[in-house]
Amino acid sequence: MGPAERGLIVGASRNQLRTRHLLKYRGLDDEGISLGLAEIDFDIPEPVKRAIINAVLNGEYYYSPAEGLPDLIQVVVDRWKRFNNVDIKAENVLPTVGAMNGIWFASEVCLNPGDEVLIVTPIYGPILDHMASTGAKVIACPARSEDYHIDLEKIEGKISERTKMIAICNPNNPTGAVYTRSELEGLADIARRRKIYVFSDELYDTLTYDGRTHVSIASLPGMEDLTITVNGFTKTYGLSGLRIGYVVASREIIAKMRALNSKIIIHPDVIAQKAAAAAYNECDEWMEALKNHCERMRNMLCDTLNKFKSISCPRSEGTFFAFPNVSKLFKNDVEASSWLEKKYKVRTSAGSMYGEGGEGHLRLNFATTEEIIQEALRRLSEAISEAERNPRL
Amino acid sequence: MGPAERGLIVGASRNQLRTRHLLKYRGLDDEGISLGLAEIDFDIPEPVKRAIINAVLNGEYYYSPAEGLPDLIQVVVDRWKRFNNVDIKAENVLPTVGAMNGIWFASEVCLNPGDEVLIVTPIYGPILDHMASTGAKVIACPARSEDYHIDLEKIEGKISERTKMIAICNPNNPTGAVYTRSELEGLADIARRRKIYVFSDELYDTLTYDGRTHVSIASLPGMEDLTITVNGFTKTYGLSGLRIGYVVASREIIAKMRALNSKIIIHPDVIAQKAAAAAYNECDEWMEALKNHCERMRNMLCDTLNKFKSISCPRSEGTFFAFPNVSKLFKNDVEASSWLEKKYKVRTSAGSMYGEGGEGHLRLNFATTEEIIQEALRRLSEAISEAERNPRL
Repeated sequence: MGPAERGLIVGASRNQLRTRHLLKYRGLDDEGISLGLAEIDFDIPEPVKRAIINAVLNGEYYYSPAEGLPDLIQVVVDRWKRFNNVDIKAENVLPTVGAMNGIWFASEVCLNPGDEVLIVTPIYGPILDHMASTGAKVIACPARSEDYHIDLEKIEGKISERTKMIAICNPNNPTGAVYTRSELEGLADIARRRKIYVFSDELYDTLTYDGRTHVSIASLPGMEDLTITVNGFTKTYGLSGLRIGYVVASREIIAKMRALNSKIIIHPDVIAQKAAAAAYNECDEWMEALKNHCERMRNMLCDTLNKFKSISCPRSEGTFFAFPNVSKLFKNDVEASSWLEKKYKVRTSAGSMYGEGGEGHLRLNFATTEEIIQEALRRLSEAISEAERNPRL
Repeated sequence: MGPAERGLIVGASRNQLRTRHLLKYRGLDDEGISLGLAEIDFDIPEPVKRAIINAVLNGEYYYSPAEGLPDLIQVVVDRWKRFNNVDIKAENVLPTVGAMNGIWFASEVCLNPGDEVLIVTPIYGPILDHMASTGAKVIACPARSEDYHIDLEKIEGKISERTKMIAICNPNNPTGAVYTRSELEGLADIARRRKIYVFSDELYDTLTYDGRTHVSIASLPGMEDLTITVNGFTKTYGLSGLRIGYVVASREIIAKMRALNSKIIIHPDVIAQKAAAAAYNECDEWMEALKNHCERMRNMLCDTLNKFKSISCPRSEGTFFAFPNVSKLFKNDVEASSWLEKKYKVRTSAGSMYGEGGEGHLRLNFATTEEIIQEALRRLSEAISEAERNPRL
């Protein structure tokens, strides 16, 4: 812990990790370390804990309106003004049962069989799956392999009369790329000219490093009504189990999502909605501390891995993932990942889960304590040395 | 409060009701009383509050497995043995985002365009809507008007080659009927002979009066794999805002629901799952007290209304609803309901929302304090007297 984070960012012990993170640590033995599932290994912020406890004590556990808890909607509207510089209204916001629910709504509402959707890969896998399951044709547009940024020419080349949407994840899970204003302007230019929707998953918007700032593509001129933004509190605020996120889109799209929502779930847990409002309202200092901590962990992780000539690991620009290319060492990323877990007891995510351009990579989640990162690096270094002696393991 | 309930069942003040029940009291002024939306006007049980607070303090806010929190699944399995006398396994249970989510899953997984579904009405409205939205043909089988019980002959007469499912709500929302073992055996007999599914919404299973016991149709011989039971914690335990329920069905049906679930929401809020486990595990005494209180409120409500010759209000056998027939006084239940709210400031639910046989009725929610019931009855008596002087208002 650096001095700025001390007292704010509370890491779990290795024993606690196994009991708290049922899925991230599922099936790992006492020695196991998980850099897999996208969860932070920290306590949630104190104001969020207080919001949950107060809701219980104040009797605020009954239905919220189906369109969302007014407190949360207002907090999202304010936040979009402050953080994204976009004026939105309550009619542009729908709280969802995690980002997964938002991705599903966006797919169901915007895509039809016969449509084409261009997806900048690697990307969070369920985006590929959900969009394909609507009957739309998913066309991968792999990012540039050297820095994981958008290849605009590739996108232009794949646009057709049937293109209905371009999908991005920014900051990118799994690569950690933070798209620049200028590349997003290039994308917006295509979208406006062709009247194509942009789907933007911005779950990691608060975690950008080396002084970078997050640009929401909805903030670019003319993009407000063309963009469907999915965001949430499950990753960066540690609320994965509470399943709480939101979508921002045009009034027409949100109206269609509300109609679907009222049939399927009515609304996300009202206490989770209270927790989310506190996260955006009262946790800026906590988030700054998390970011500083994660930036240090990224330095430690990427710099150590880059000492190996056989590995290339661009320094993540944001998120809490590193995405090293390990294809010189391993035939197959899925086999590499399971070998590392079995022999070195370090869980990672196989890059090919994230679509074209992900193969030959591993995703490593560094939102954990320094102790865990150091132990993981000790084991990974040993593993890489073994693999270097025994290439294409 | 009777002596048995004192200290366990904590009623909210009229001021608290307005701030806690955002939807039930939405749009009502200071004088308004809501006997509308299906929420209890009480604090949730202390063990449930503790479970939520402990989850926060113990760091248990990360993902549960998608198939549900093992603690909750085990509690449901145990409860089914103890309360319903049915041996189920974990593979037969799926936690859902409220019962609404369970109804939606059942409709999506079991019904297809061209199928027919017989629904015993009046019934909770979304069951009619969701089943119809699959493209299946919904055929209403109204209950007997004198006692709201199942009309088996009517069902037999409407069965065809295309009948895929019979849907009931037991105890019935809105009529309060608690189906007897013998009428459920009649239904099971039809289902077994014809190999038809039975969908059973049993959200009010703990609230049965005058010594009646709840019989789960899944407990009848040969019905385990033919029944899809939806249950939850949102109504009788006061957790409507936490959106937590579950489905019990055959392994095959649950497997299909899990596949859908993992795409749409992953799992319900893990803290809500903890709360639900505590509700089933630690709140029997609380539930007994709630039942005793509600039974007294039912007596007060039904007996007062039955003093008016123009009204017929069978004593509810279960649930927390009375369902008086007001058709001698009012042309139209929707207009009656809005007149009562406007002039007498008592909110009710119009019976025609619940399908065939509901028209000409009002649903009154009596899960509230004695003070509110008495004030509501004072106003309703005045309203009925006015309507009697001025029939077909």
